[in-house]
Amino acid sequence: MTKIIDVDLAKCYRLLNHGPTVLVTSAFEGKQNVMAAAWAMPLDFDPPKMLVVIDKNTYSRHLIDGSGEFILNIPCRAQAAQVLKVGSESGNDGDKFASSQLQPLAAQKMAAPRVAGCIGYLECKVIQETHNQQKYDLFIGEVIAAQADADVYSEGRWHFDGHDEKRTLHYISGGAFFSIGDQFTID
Amino acid sequence: MTKIIDVDLAKCYRLLNHGPTVLVTSAFEGKQNVMAAAWAMPLDFDPPKMLVVIDKNTYSRHLIDGSGEFILNIPCRAQAAQVLKVGSESGNDGDKFASSQLQPLAAQKMAAPRVAGCIGYLECKVIQETHNQQKYDLFIGEVIAAQADADVYSEGRWHFDGHDEKRTLHYISGGAFFSIGDQFTID
Repeated sequence: MTKIIDVDLAKCYRLLNHGPTVLVTSAFEGKQNVMAAAWAMPLDFDPPKMLVVIDKNTYSRHLIDGSGEFILNIPCRAQAAQVLKVGSESGNDGDKFASSQLQPLAAQKMAAPRVAGCIGYLECKVIQETHNQQKYDLFIGEVIAAQADADVYSEGRWHFDGHDEKRTLHYISGGAFFSIGDQFTID
Repeated sequence: MTKIIDVDLAKCYRLLNHGPTVLVTSAFEGKQNVMAAAWAMPLDFDPPKMLVVIDKNTYSRHLIDGSGEFILNIPCRAQAAQVLKVGSESGNDGDKFASSQLQPLAAQKMAAPRVAGCIGYLECKVIQETHNQQKYDLFIGEVIAAQADADVYSEGRWHFDGHDEKRTLHYISGGAFFSIGDQFTID
């Protein structure tokens, strides 16, 4: 049974520091969606802020503009086919949770769902920056809750050895991904 | 002999799409600097734009504010110790090219140097967005030249098999890095 632990907000930037592809979830007026985003990264440590690019044409954009909230879910290698699927379809055409068989889970602090089986979660409130949103499709979110899978995240760091199926995904293009590789330390 | 090839600007986002840590180089009024940044990513495809966070206290910030230019250099596993060194020291305290023994190379379209031995280069002109720069230390750069190492980048994609020392670095914290791992494709 996977154990999901709370992550100290002051260190939650570490969930994204190494550049994984994420799933963005959102909800508004009873609708929900999940999309893939390779363009997400930390912006600040404390209070923690994240950046993500959300195109104007996406259904998620409608939900995030309406709710002022989103969750960055960190998927893993076991979910690669589903990540590609929700990255290729549009929520404008139907429920992507249903088509991908990704399972929504209740979040801690917002109506947007988390995605079951992901290894990390960053629940974010949009910091309204209208110019960035309109001109660049760029959203800043302040993280108000963070969690990670205890199998691969402990003592403030990812540790993937022995858990290859839970390694983070790093999207290339055309259905190709890298999974994250070896960890090493420079003394 | 390493062969550096030009990368099609419309696809240069692929150099950063998988989330590597970068070296940011800059120059102004005869001074130059190199710093490490884990927080850099693509913002747009065409014309290509990149985001990078440059703290107000860095010497690089002074050079970038002065010149309106920076280069995102993509270092590799062979350079990890040097990346950590230039990420730990400040250019306010002396020439980091000298202390790290990283070698500056002339760039294609700007005075800022490239870093020898890196596997990718994105030469960027700052798109002035004063509010983002002042409030969030966030810089948007339009890419005006892009190059990559032909050993590991061809046909618009990274290919690291057989070149472990040229795999991208993905910083964790405390001197620890991941190198990028296996590539796989979902059909």
